[in-house]
This record gives sequence, C-alpha cells and structure tokens, in this order.
Amino acid sequence: MTTPLPHSLRSDARDNRERLLAVARTTFAERGLDVAMREIARRAEVGPATLYRHFPTKEALVTEAFREQMTACTAIVDEALADPDPWRGFCLVIEAVCEMQARDRGFTAAFVSAFPRAIDFAADRGQALGKVAELARRAKAAGKLRPDFVPDDLVMVLMANGGIRAPSPPASVAASRRFAALLIQGMRAEPALSPLPPPVRLPLSADAGSRR
Amino acid sequence: MTTPLPHSLRSDARDNRERLLAVARTTFAERGLDVAMREIARRAEVGPATLYRHFPTKEALVTEAFREQMTACTAIVDEALADPDPWRGFCLVIEAVCEMQARDRGFTAAFVSAFPRAIDFAADRGQALGKVAELARRAKAAGKLRPDFVPDDLVMVLMANGGIRAPSPPASVAASRRFAALLIQGMRAEPALSPLPPPVRLPLSADAGSRR
Repeated sequence: MTTPLPHSLRSDARDNRERLLAVARTTFAERGLDVAMREIARRAEVGPATLYRHFPTKEALVTEAFREQMTACTAIVDEALADPDPWRGFCLVIEAVCEMQARDRGFTAAFVSAFPRAIDFAADRGQALGKVAELARRAKAAGKLRPDFVPDDLVMVLMANGGIRAPSPPASVAASRRFAALLIQGMRAEPALSPLPPPVRLPLSADAGSRR
Repeated sequence: MTTPLPHSLRSDARDNRERLLAVARTTFAERGLDVAMREIARRAEVGPATLYRHFPTKEALVTEAFREQMTACTAIVDEALADPDPWRGFCLVIEAVCEMQARDRGFTAAFVSAFPRAIDFAADRGQALGKVAELARRAKAAGKLRPDFVPDDLVMVLMANGGIRAPSPPASVAASRRFAALLIQGMRAEPALSPLPPPVRLPLSADAGSRR
C-alpha cells in the first residue's frame, strides 16, 4: 500500500469492527457459540468478506469479543486470591462466575469451549483456572472447603448453572444466586461430612456449553 | 385385495406404533423435545400420515413415549414418601431424579415442559410434585431439610443437572451423582446456616429443558 487510507475509510473499518464485535457479543450471549460466522455478518449488515477480513476465524472473533469479560474474570480471581480469607475468596469466585454466566451465556460458553487455535484465550483461561486451584488449596488448608472438592467441580458448576433457564435476565441472575448459595453450602467443610461420589473429568470441548 | 384384513396388517400397525415410540424415546433422550414430528417419522421410516394416525399431536407422542418413565418416577416418589425417615426419602428423590435425567434427557425435558394438552402427563406430574412438596414439609419438620427450601428449587435442580455434559453416558451418570450429593449437602439443615437468597419461580415452559 503506497498511499495512506483516507481517514473516513479507516474510520469505516473501525466502525465495522466494533459493530461486528457488538453483534457477536449479543448473539453469543443469547445463543451460545452455535452461531455461524455468516449469521454474525448478516446481523451486523456487512458482507462475509468484511467479517473474515477483521476476524479470519471464529476463534479470533470469540477471543476479541470476550476480551473484556476475560479481563473482568481475571480481575475477580486475582481479587479473590488476594483476600486474606481464602474461603471468602473462594465463595466470591463461585458467586461471581455464576452471576457473570447468568448475565452472559456467551462468555461462559466461550470459557468452557476448547478452541485449540484461540491461544491467548486459552492461556488466560489456564491462568485463571490455576489461580482458582490455588485458592481451593488454601481454603482446604484453612479447614473451610471440603477436602474432596476438586477444581473439575468448577466446570461442573458452570455447566449446571448454565442449565438454569429463567423467564427474564433478572430472574436468571436471582436463580443463579440462590443456586450458588446452595452449592457453596454443599462445599463447606462440615464436621460430619459424607464423602462425595468420585469426581468426573468434564473435558472442555468445542461443544460443551455451546448449546442452551 | 378381496380377502379380509390379514393378521399381518394389524400386526404391521402395532409394529409401526412400537417403532415410532422407540424412535421417539431415543431421539428425545438424545436431543430433548426440539425434534419435529416429521423427523421422528423419517427416522422410524414411516410416512408422516402414519405417525399422525397413531399420535395426532406431539403431546400425545410425548405422553405415550414417557408413560413408563412417568410410572417409574411416581414409584420413586411413593417409595420416598413411605420411608419412615423423610430426609432419607427426600435425598432418594433428588438422587433418583438426577440419575434418571442423566440417563434420559428426554424424560426430564418432557417433565419440565408445559404441554397444555397433555392432560394425563400433566396430572401425573402435578401429583408427583405434590408428593415431593409433602416430603419436603416432613423433612423440614424433622429438622433435617433447611427451612428455606421451596419445591421450586427442585425445578432449578433439574434444570441445572440437565446442563451437565459429560463425554459418555456413564460419565454423565457419575457427574450427576456427585452433583446431587453436593446439592443434598447444601440442602441439609445445619446449626449455623446462612439463609439462601430468595427463591425464583422457574415456570415450566414448552421451551425449558428442551434444548441441550
């Protein structure tokens, strides 16, 4: 390219990019990730070529669309990890992720999906999960979290919370709050606790969480 | 053909009916109730007219397809209600319905769906839910179930359990067992229990649970 792009054209491109991201967020939030790229383009009123110029793959679109939420998620986990009471920190994570999911199904669907080529997204997720595992270790050491909790249980909680359907977004958030409180009570170390049945590996998969 | 209706023809009709029910059960179990009648007919290798002659509406097909499970469900609730320890009975219901759901998504999807015209099905469901409410009342009176549990929580549990996706049917059952055990622990009346956030009415709807 020899001449610089005219300002208005660069501005158009930026507008398209923002509109595509906004449409992707709304659509993923409503319907999970089971949405064709073509459908995102159609809803954003741009041609497929424009969409693919900005986001060559669905992974790229997902990563960009959820960058802000991933940052928020990381911030929650960091705040929880900094709490001097690890059990309070652990409860904060459960509550916050359930609420975040009730507000935006798309992000959680993205979070539990394996997008092998979404390198940045997967790296951020790996870090967040590692921090939650560390938090769980500390909460167990403090005698507050039941010893048979495993980090995989968090994936189970996310999947389960995602299954709750309420007639409106506020009802969805309210139901998730009650659900999280019940689970937190179940995760608390109590004097005479019956052991849980063995944990199950629930692999992150491209399909998991992308429906409903 | 001048001879009277041969035996084999009546037998064909019966075979078609059984095949349609078997296909409906399998398809609903795999995919919930979001399956067109036409698709059921196609999978059963009969024409749509044959399907509609046996089952004039989807409600009729659903009711017939799940008659056996509804009977099993009623039997579980009756057994639980007959248990002299209402808390043990209550736990049995939670465990059994979660396991039943993990084995067959179709039935639970049918259970939480509002099919206004599926009169028998809705009446059986109403009776089962009434019995669980009675069981919960007794378990609270015995000081075992937390006083802020409401029968609507059972719908929430079913929806949440339905959200758990595992890579195989046995893994799905195992995950549901662990999930049920965690929830039961959370529902237990404990000396110093933080109250739950307020309950949310999760209306039975034609859509609820029919996806995923």
